[in-house]
Formats: sequence, C-alpha cells, structure tokens
Amino acid sequence: MKVELSLFFFVEAVGTIAFASSGAMVAIKKQLDLLGVIVLGVTTAVGGGMIRDIIIGNVPPALFKDPVYVLLAFFTVMILFIIVRSNQRILDGRSLVTYEKVMNIFDAVGLGAFTVVGIDTAILSGYGEYHFLIIFLGVITGVGGGILRDIMAGQTPYVLRKHIYASASIAGAILYAGLLEQINGNIAMLIGACTVILIRLLATRYCWNLPTATKK
Amino acid sequence: MKVELSLFFFVEAVGTIAFASSGAMVAIKKQLDLLGVIVLGVTTAVGGGMIRDIIIGNVPPALFKDPVYVLLAFFTVMILFIIVRSNQRILDGRSLVTYEKVMNIFDAVGLGAFTVVGIDTAILSGYGEYHFLIIFLGVITGVGGGILRDIMAGQTPYVLRKHIYASASIAGAILYAGLLEQINGNIAMLIGACTVILIRLLATRYCWNLPTATKK
Amino acid sequence: MKVELSLFFFVEAVGTIAFASSGAMVAIKKQLDLLGVIVLGVTTAVGGGMIRDIIIGNVPPALFKDPVYVLLAFFTVMILFIIVRSNQRILDGRSLVTYEKVMNIFDAVGLGAFTVVGIDTAILSGYGEYHFLIIFLGVITGVGGGILRDIMAGQTPYVLRKHIYASASIAGAILYAGLLEQINGNIAMLIGACTVILIRLLATRYCWNLPTATKK
Repeated sequence: MKVELSLFFFVEAVGTIAFASSGAMVAIKKQLDLLGVIVLGVTTAVGGGMIRDIIIGNVPPALFKDPVYVLLAFFTVMILFIIVRSNQRILDGRSLVTYEKVMNIFDAVGLGAFTVVGIDTAILSGYGEYHFLIIFLGVITGVGGGILRDIMAGQTPYVLRKHIYASASIAGAILYAGLLEQINGNIAMLIGACTVILIRLLATRYCWNLPTATKK
Repeated sequence: MKVELSLFFFVEAVGTIAFASSGAMVAIKKQLDLLGVIVLGVTTAVGGGMIRDIIIGNVPPALFKDPVYVLLAFFTVMILFIIVRSNQRILDGRSLVTYEKVMNIFDAVGLGAFTVVGIDTAILSGYGEYHFLIIFLGVITGVGGGILRDIMAGQTPYVLRKHIYASASIAGAILYAGLLEQINGNIAMLIGACTVILIRLLATRYCWNLPTATKK
Repeated sequence: MKVELSLFFFVEAVGTIAFASSGAMVAIKKQLDLLGVIVLGVTTAVGGGMIRDIIIGNVPPALFKDPVYVLLAFFTVMILFIIVRSNQRILDGRSLVTYEKVMNIFDAVGLGAFTVVGIDTAILSGYGEYHFLIIFLGVITGVGGGILRDIMAGQTPYVLRKHIYASASIAGAILYAGLLEQINGNIAMLIGACTVILIRLLATRYCWNLPTATKK
C-alpha cells in the first residue's frame, strides 16, 4: 500500500511538473511578468482537479486543503523562470528542442496519471455508477488545466486544435472505467494510465490527427 | 401530464439539436478536428444547464447523471460532421442559407425552452422566492452554452456582441417569473417561452439592435 | 458595530462602482451594445465574489440572494452609458484623464475592500485554518471579476499582463491572514485593505512592474 501510494505520488508529481512547465512556457512566450507566469503555470497544473472537484461538489477543492501540488507547481515555475531569465538564449538554442522532447514525455505521463486520478476521485466520492460522469471527470482532470491555461492566455484551447490529446485521455478513461468491474483496481488503473501515455506518445511521434470536416 | 412531458422533451430536444449544431458549425468553420467539433457542439448544447446546476449547488449537474441530451447533441454533431465532410461544397452553396434559416428558428425555440426550463429547475430546487436568482438562472441556462462556445472558440461572446439575443431570454424570463404567481404554471411557462421565441425571431427579421454608447 | 458595518458597506460600494465602471468602459470601447455593457460591468463588479462562493460551496452565491451590489453595479453602468452616449466627445477629452485618475483610486479601494471581504467570508464559512485557501479566496474575490471581464471581452486577463495588481492583493491578503491571529480583527482588516490600496497606488504612480523572463 505504502509503495503504491509513493508510486502514485511520484507519477502525479511528474505530471504536475510537466503541466506547470507547459503553463509557464506559454506565459514566458507571451512575455507575461513573473506573477502571470506563476498563475498560468500553477493553474495549468491544478486547474483540472479544481474543475473536477467543483463539478462533483467536493468543495473547497482538494488542492486548497492540501496544497502540496500547488507548492510543487510553484517551485517548478520559479526554477524555470530563473533559468530562462539567467540564460536568455536558452529559448532559441538546441537545448529547447531537448527540453520540449522531455517535457512531451512528462506531459503524457501527467495526462495519464491525472486521467485515472480523476476517475478514482469520482468513484471515491460515490459516483461509481454514473459511467459517463466518471469518464468525463477523468478527462477533465487530465485536460482541464490546459483548457484554463489557453483560455486565460487568449488562445483557442489546445485540446480543440490538434493532435490526439483529449482523445488519448478519453480512450484511457473508458478502458479504465470498463476494466474496473472486471479486474483488480490497481492493475486496471495502470492499464488505463499507460494507454493514455502510449496513445499520446505514438500520436506525437507519428503525427496522428483526427479528421476535420473541411480540407485545409 | 404524459403529453406535457413529451411536448417538453420535444421542445428541449429541438433546442439541443439547434445549440449543438451552432457549436459544431463554429468549430467546423475554425477547421477544428472531429473532437473539437464534438466538444464545442456538446458544450454549447448542455453548457448552460451545467453552469446553472453548479450555481445552485445541484452537483453533479443533471447532464452527467442522465446524459440523454449529451447523447442527442453528440449524434447531432456527428451527423452534421459527416454531411459537411462528404459534401464540402455544402458550406458555400444555397443550401447553407436554407440551413441557417431553419437553424435560426430552432435556435430561437431552444432559447425559449432552455430559459423556462432553467427557471423551473431553480424553483424545483427551492429558490422560488429569490426572483433575481431564478430569472438569472433562466437566462444563463439559455445563453450559457453559447457563452462557453464563444470563449472556447476565442471569440467575443455572441450575447455581448449583437442582436436581441440575451434580451429576448431576459424578457421571457421576467414574464414567466412574474406570471407564475398569477396563473397556471404550464400556461405561464408557455407564454414565457413563446415570448422569447417571438422577440428573437422578430429581432432577426427586422434587425433590431440595442443602442451602443458610441456611434459606429 | 453599526458604524463599522456602514463603513464597510461604503467601502464595498466604492469598489463596486469602480469595478462596474471598469467593466462598462471595456465594453463601451469594444462598441458592445447596452446589454453587453451591462453584462460586462455587473460581471466585473460581482464576478469575484461569485467565483469565491462557488469554490467554497456557498451556493447560490450571496450576490443572488441579496442583489444589492448587483443593483448598484447596474445603476453605475446605466449612468455611465447615458453620460457617454449623450456626450460622445467625453471619450477623447481631458475629462477622460480626470475620470481615469479618479477611477484608478476607486479601483484600488475596491481591490483592497474585496480582498479582505473575501478572506472574511472564507473564515466565516469555517475555513480559517486553511491559510492557503483563505488567501486565495481573498485574492480571487479581488481580481476574479476583472479576469471574467477580460476573458469575456477576449483580451488576456489584465492581472496576467502588467502592473502590480494581483500582487498588491496577494500582499494584503497574506498580511491580513497573518495579523488575524495576533491582533484585533477589525484593525487587521484595515491594515490589510490599506496595504493593498497603498501598493496598488504606488505601483501605478511609479510604474512598478514585476520582472519578465525575457527582455522585451
């Protein structure tokens, strides 16, 4: 149990770092000031869970009662801010390519972790029988922070624009919710999270895209 | 009773189809992919009710517990997507004009239906004595989905921009809330909904607009 | 007690007028119609408190049960609309400079008042022991209306863009929350609110800004 919890915390921490970084980078590229970078970074990291908690009436949302992930997101953002500020050329150089590759993997792990955590929270709150609800809550936990980030930054939400992003979360959420009644919960959770991560990484690697209604 | 319920379901269904279509069309014109089209379409259809339920603490919102309108919105969007994809020229042709005329009527019916449904839900939840609240909830049920659609699509919300849109909903909501204490509830509801529809259609037909502070 | 309440009401009223005006002016400059001006004005004035109430599950939010500030915001917006409409040149003239100077002071007072009111509401709702939560609720009560205004008007939220705005609110909120356990509540509240106002006014006067990660 202890080990599972630790593993779980580790995976969520990786996701938090990735999401906070993605929010901070959007803010830095928009030349927002320090506070803007912090707000966008932290919102991206914890916003999905906040929306989920408000939807199921779990108020005040968990993040406010035990702000460990808020702190983690905050320190992630601060470190990133200091690095970029002390080395301006980092945004142009080759290190940015490496950074984005690593962050893409982190982001996929975060998406997988947050998706299954969202479903778990919904089930623990007693909504296990509402399948549509728990799948939705898993997905919104995964992609909600990014949606808030994009709305605040004034850009069309990333999940609406391209790549298999929310789709990966949806696939994993449906699989996890479906498996839950068949097999051991922990294994189902692991399969769900890995499905999200795998689809997300393969989609980036092979440039998978969903169809659009009109040809571009 | 049975008939009323059926009529009611029918009217709400018409509104759901209209709202889902409007969200899907915004997404298609923005060349979003299939998932983006689905998300915007469904959000437009059920977003107003979701905001209403969160404001009165009716959580999880009704749409999650009984996702019949989510499904209806989903199928509406899928059919629209397939039609546009299989016949690209449909977006330029004369059929688009006819389509928009029909949808405009549907949209007015939806606005009327959702407005009175919002008020009804608020009253059933025990807030009948708060007049400002129930009128607001009626209006937000009617226009909230469109606001979410526009915020997500990165455009200034339609209700803020032009035409007598929210105004129609407000007028009908005030009338319904006022009549409720005088006459039979079903008749009041019918009058409220028809007022919204009538004002909305007349405003479109005769290009009514509210004044602006500065001349354009 | 009576005097304190009156003073408090007065300070909140000043803030409401300032926030409603700022929302209305954004709408007027965007040439939105009367309803758009009302919606943006009222949302800016009462939106922060609404977000706070939803986060702590205080539903329906206070503004709906006792819409005194909604009414105040509404009349503020109407008066502003009529003044601008009847004297178009007012938007170019020297009176605009004076107007913006006065409004800037009002806005600072509003930010200070709303910040401490937010914290107070959170404590009265029984969340006094969650320090991060009450500070966040103070700040979101202060800046939330402006965030909603900017998101609806389609501009990057003001708090993310420039000036010491949210920072002033954060500083005052932390000070108030910290002092609360040491000294008399009313004095702590006064110190908190004045800190916000002072930082905000000094920041405007001397063009203080937070650092950005990249040079502009």
